[in-house]
Amino acid sequence: MSDKTTIGVGMIGYAFMGRVHSQAWRNVGAFFDLPLAPRMAVLGGRSKEHTAAAAARLGWADVETDWRELVRRDDVQIVDICTPGDSHAEIAVAALRAGKHVICEKPLANTVAEAEAMVAAAASAPGRSMVAFNYRRVPAVALARRYVQEGRLGEIRHVRAQYLQDWIVDPEFPLVWRLQKDKAGAGALGDIGSHIVDAAEFVTGQHVVGVSGLMETFVKERPLAGESAGLGGCRTEERGAVTVDDAALFIGRMSGGALASFEATRFATGRKNAMRIEINGQLGSLAFDFESMNELWFSAGGGGFERILVTEPDHPYVGAWWPPGHGLGYEHTFTHEIKDFLEAVATGTDPEPSFADGLRVQRVLAAVEASAADGSRYTTVEDS
Amino acid sequence: MSDKTTIGVGMIGYAFMGRVHSQAWRNVGAFFDLPLAPRMAVLGGRSKEHTAAAAARLGWADVETDWRELVRRDDVQIVDICTPGDSHAEIAVAALRAGKHVICEKPLANTVAEAEAMVAAAASAPGRSMVAFNYRRVPAVALARRYVQEGRLGEIRHVRAQYLQDWIVDPEFPLVWRLQKDKAGAGALGDIGSHIVDAAEFVTGQHVVGVSGLMETFVKERPLAGESAGLGGCRTEERGAVTVDDAALFIGRMSGGALASFEATRFATGRKNAMRIEINGQLGSLAFDFESMNELWFSAGGGGFERILVTEPDHPYVGAWWPPGHGLGYEHTFTHEIKDFLEAVATGTDPEPSFADGLRVQRVLAAVEASAADGSRYTTVEDS
Amino acid sequence: MSDKTTIGVGMIGYAFMGRVHSQAWRNVGAFFDLPLAPRMAVLGGRSKEHTAAAAARLGWADVETDWRELVRRDDVQIVDICTPGDSHAEIAVAALRAGKHVICEKPLANTVAEAEAMVAAAASAPGRSMVAFNYRRVPAVALARRYVQEGRLGEIRHVRAQYLQDWIVDPEFPLVWRLQKDKAGAGALGDIGSHIVDAAEFVTGQHVVGVSGLMETFVKERPLAGESAGLGGCRTEERGAVTVDDAALFIGRMSGGALASFEATRFATGRKNAMRIEINGQLGSLAFDFESMNELWFSAGGGGFERILVTEPDHPYVGAWWPPGHGLGYEHTFTHEIKDFLEAVATGTDPEPSFADGLRVQRVLAAVEASAADGSRYTTVEDS
Amino acid sequence: MSDKTTIGVGMIGYAFMGRVHSQAWRNVGAFFDLPLAPRMAVLGGRSKEHTAAAAARLGWADVETDWRELVRRDDVQIVDICTPGDSHAEIAVAALRAGKHVICEKPLANTVAEAEAMVAAAASAPGRSMVAFNYRRVPAVALARRYVQEGRLGEIRHVRAQYLQDWIVDPEFPLVWRLQKDKAGAGALGDIGSHIVDAAEFVTGQHVVGVSGLMETFVKERPLAGESAGLGGCRTEERGAVTVDDAALFIGRMSGGALASFEATRFATGRKNAMRIEINGQLGSLAFDFESMNELWFSAGGGGFERILVTEPDHPYVGAWWPPGHGLGYEHTFTHEIKDFLEAVATGTDPEPSFADGLRVQRVLAAVEASAADGSRYTTVEDS
Repeated sequence: MSDKTTIGVGMIGYAFMGRVHSQAWRNVGAFFDLPLAPRMAVLGGRSKEHTAAAAARLGWADVETDWRELVRRDDVQIVDICTPGDSHAEIAVAALRAGKHVICEKPLANTVAEAEAMVAAAASAPGRSMVAFNYRRVPAVALARRYVQEGRLGEIRHVRAQYLQDWIVDPEFPLVWRLQKDKAGAGALGDIGSHIVDAAEFVTGQHVVGVSGLMETFVKERPLAGESAGLGGCRTEERGAVTVDDAALFIGRMSGGALASFEATRFATGRKNAMRIEINGQLGSLAFDFESMNELWFSAGGGGFERILVTEPDHPYVGAWWPPGHGLGYEHTFTHEIKDFLEAVATGTDPEPSFADGLRVQRVLAAVEASAADGSRYTTVEDS
Repeated sequence: MSDKTTIGVGMIGYAFMGRVHSQAWRNVGAFFDLPLAPRMAVLGGRSKEHTAAAAARLGWADVETDWRELVRRDDVQIVDICTPGDSHAEIAVAALRAGKHVICEKPLANTVAEAEAMVAAAASAPGRSMVAFNYRRVPAVALARRYVQEGRLGEIRHVRAQYLQDWIVDPEFPLVWRLQKDKAGAGALGDIGSHIVDAAEFVTGQHVVGVSGLMETFVKERPLAGESAGLGGCRTEERGAVTVDDAALFIGRMSGGALASFEATRFATGRKNAMRIEINGQLGSLAFDFESMNELWFSAGGGGFERILVTEPDHPYVGAWWPPGHGLGYEHTFTHEIKDFLEAVATGTDPEPSFADGLRVQRVLAAVEASAADGSRYTTVEDS
Repeated sequence: MSDKTTIGVGMIGYAFMGRVHSQAWRNVGAFFDLPLAPRMAVLGGRSKEHTAAAAARLGWADVETDWRELVRRDDVQIVDICTPGDSHAEIAVAALRAGKHVICEKPLANTVAEAEAMVAAAASAPGRSMVAFNYRRVPAVALARRYVQEGRLGEIRHVRAQYLQDWIVDPEFPLVWRLQKDKAGAGALGDIGSHIVDAAEFVTGQHVVGVSGLMETFVKERPLAGESAGLGGCRTEERGAVTVDDAALFIGRMSGGALASFEATRFATGRKNAMRIEINGQLGSLAFDFESMNELWFSAGGGGFERILVTEPDHPYVGAWWPPGHGLGYEHTFTHEIKDFLEAVATGTDPEPSFADGLRVQRVLAAVEASAADGSRYTTVEDS
Repeated sequence: MSDKTTIGVGMIGYAFMGRVHSQAWRNVGAFFDLPLAPRMAVLGGRSKEHTAAAAARLGWADVETDWRELVRRDDVQIVDICTPGDSHAEIAVAALRAGKHVICEKPLANTVAEAEAMVAAAASAPGRSMVAFNYRRVPAVALARRYVQEGRLGEIRHVRAQYLQDWIVDPEFPLVWRLQKDKAGAGALGDIGSHIVDAAEFVTGQHVVGVSGLMETFVKERPLAGESAGLGGCRTEERGAVTVDDAALFIGRMSGGALASFEATRFATGRKNAMRIEINGQLGSLAFDFESMNELWFSAGGGGFERILVTEPDHPYVGAWWPPGHGLGYEHTFTHEIKDFLEAVATGTDPEPSFADGLRVQRVLAAVEASAADGSRYTTVEDS
């Protein structure tokens, strides 16, 4: 690695997303031939003590307690935003203006307006920008897209996407930040619904053009959490209002004529991270479930579906890892994302999904919310 | 069987449904201790020659070419209607007025008005009546209902039902009667959508109270079939308009507060008869797919789903058949249906699903059509 | 059916096997175009009362309490033997000598000597004979054989067959006839091990040429059953010795050079009727599990296995039944068997599996027993 | 990490195993609270140039081209042996004598004699030693052991273990080092058969006490590889003899009375890394397949198996990683192994599996070879 150009990374946030991004930065160079060698320069966080401990554990050389300082540093060329959605726009715009490349966790922002500002900033800045819809980099999902592009499905008729979790099914689960609209922007719709909208568009190459939606908050109040940094936290006897959706369902149309159905929920008991997508075309079909992330199911019609174990060297990203049958895990999707991002930075091309892609997803989510607020009326997604 | 009261059956129609009903009438007494011994008295059909051949093959003692004659016969106490939906109402009402018991294929009728007339006739007649939603009699589906009734799922949050087939995905598949509105009433919505609405209501014990729908006819014209009695038929070069939906998606709410999503399509390449339902409750979840009809998946939370092989003697209907692990097939659901119907007739109770249940399903379908015609606006299902 | 030649059937035994054979005789003509119309003439059983009740229920016209009388009757051209193994040889030989066609439950006999006598009788008699290894007639198993014959697997390297049940895992399960050597001949080895030996030979077209075996009786004594006709029975406080094997494992070689492993057990908790076979060839592989009997898994190398839903019209036997996706059950395998048997009788060809095939399986079982008794030493299967 | 005692690691070999061990050393500290902070001090390899490139890529600070030098270095307290089996004994014994802790890839050695020497060296040295049977550290496998220890299976009746791969099914695949007895010691038996023997003993807590085996080399000659360091290599027109087994089957008995069957093959077309184990006990059963490594199947009798998604925080090793439903991959098993090894080193306890455990596996393999060479005769495994 010694003769490669080094590029400094500053990452803000070290909770769940920060931990998994760190894992990607730390390992990407051991598996992929990169044009740039990332240097884990600075970790940003509010508490000096906690941030320093996290940096030591995760492998960051230095820390900053003010993200503005981090964004300004000369040893930082890439800013990696792993904070809740309410700070994405401000940090990303500042970083872009400071000439940095930016990779930002999803959903891109908490509102369409914020996302538009980010896209505008990206358009006028020299740095590259990317929104971190990591499920695109599941090898099986990338292989699904390849199959569609190769024409193996023919004209697409149906998209059926679900993201099912169950971590708040217990009404006594506390009111963590992900259940508060001011911090998270939205509930299941924004957090996990955004993933399946992006995945559906990525795999099919079509956009969602209109939706009809239903949203629900099953548990209206929850115990206040002592702190709300992670998924858990200490409980108190006080209760607060849940201000986001617990579940969102929407049906709609894709730009190529397919019908689509989407469901995002945190109340699907027994489903832990069932990010699922099925696509039916005139010639073939595909099905995927992240709970079996190394498998893609393909039908070329006839009477069956093939379970493809996506661990062959010619499958996307897989050649860099282990022999066939030795599966990958969740975190690898981030390693692939960082690899693609670094290549885009090095070649001066735009990485995908771009901030514009993130904005389009945001507009789909906004259309779902508008539809749900208007008697589920079919609502056209605003043009990008 | 000799000392049991015999009850005469007249069946109208001998295509797919007639064949499977015959199999049920012929075998039910060999497996279940019945209060009444059915006698396969008369088969009704238009062509004398074809009907006679079918009767010989299927085990019916006599034939009639006019259903009015069949309905009038003294040796017929039960009329079994296996014709397309456009004749259900007329035959059923006549049979009920003639004092017969009636079992009628689904959907109950082609319109809500027809279904209402049938319910009215049933209410004022001495005979029992039943609509043949056979999937209720899949042992795994009946077991699912038992689990819900036992409280194993707790409060139900989500219903997710799909009925996926692919038999008309080829645009050159001919214009058979099931694709013609005047004969079939509706397309995927009525034919298979009705099954999943009934199954969702049966398993949860809740009603669909409102829906938002999308419908589509992907292939607008198809080759005329030489004859349109079955699923196939000879093709000609002429084409005719497809006057029913190819696919219908709808989301909605159940009477107990659950969110529900439904999808019925004949364009899901590789899915042959994937009648699927998943239910998520606060305490547990259930999942079923008819393509693996002897399996029910149950989660009591935690990290897993149990694949229950529904072949144990204490599972619904199963004790009458074979030892554990020796699965049943499609036709057994009809045998179970006939068994339950005969018991209801013998005891003078109302069998389930009744014509009123069939009407309720019809009203859900009508609400879907109304919603789809009105920009997917959320539409309340008319009260029974 | 009226213009077809009728052929009279006499069946002996009406327990589990008799019930399922009756179902096949009763229905085969409704689904298959048969050259001969079977007439369910006589049911044989020891108790007049019980036999008459069974005949009424199962559809037999008359009864005999002495099988010798049944075998002699002029209205019986086919004798169907559904008794325990200790009477197979005597009945079959008598029936063949009386000029009847014979279909006999498996295993063919309790000893090689008996099986040899049956083969000799079959060779010198005018009637056709068949041993009822019904799993050959599972459509998925027949499709597996077709794939091998078409060369899709290439040279076969491995056969891996298991028959796993768990119905006697409880040490208090009573000492039914299947656990007594004098009646059953053998335990898991003969009852279910015979099925997987036959299936392995059928699918691969190769013979088992040598074996090394291990057998075990885990539970040496069990409560005496009040009666031992079925799988169950009333329990007493007395105990008797289990005189057959609970489980048998053997490895060996096939005539075409493949390595094979077999396991038959009634102690595989949670496996109800897992009759499984996997075959690996140089070009492809197949896997089957009877607990999902409508599925066959096929790999053409690469990274996956296709789950073939064996319900397409061009799959073996399937065209006679229901549309794609509407699965069959256990009993259909017997209907297929009877259909093939009737065709063989009509055309004067030898049905498969013949008594000679049954004898070959018997010799494999004998070799396993000999090996197990001699320190698992590799033992050559005696030539037919 | 700064206030933890640092411990220096020297690793020998940087092919497949070296890459995955490096990944474990590099990341273990970011996920687990370790008593010792490993320092990736030295990488050993024969070629200066290649070793330096690998060290740069994988994160090793320095290189040595002579393993004897590496073993002597003061900045190395742990020696990690990732070479082919023919050098394990020499390196391990030297490292132990030099006072180092040793972790050694499996199988422990190429012969029982070598393994015995290693155990003797370990017994008289101050350092800790461990053999790297990584499949013990699959969370699902560790959970299986926990279930057995908790008594959920009751008395164990059956162990059924297979390790199925297909990477040499093509006869033109070259003669790499794993197919040469002088380097690899054995073929499928040693390479992958050793894993399932260890896993069976680990999960059940019982030892294999006797075996009856069959071995086969299907393809006797293969093209010479240009180089033989990895799984692949350039091909020439010359051919050489395959001197190891392609497949090994053995059946046997466990110390607790269970029957066991094992199969290791590289000729199971379509099976990429199907390391499978099923255990049937009187009360329950377990099943695992590494191709779905985040799943464990458990039956408590009744009619079903529960698919446990082994991603819950209370599952072994899982709490250190991601939220439920976010699966792990192959390499995590090594990270868990290193974590356990470091804890053992820190506390001065013996890590598992020890060299003695590795020797016991070796003796099972030797018994299989002896049995296969003696007509499959049942052969007692030599006592440790």
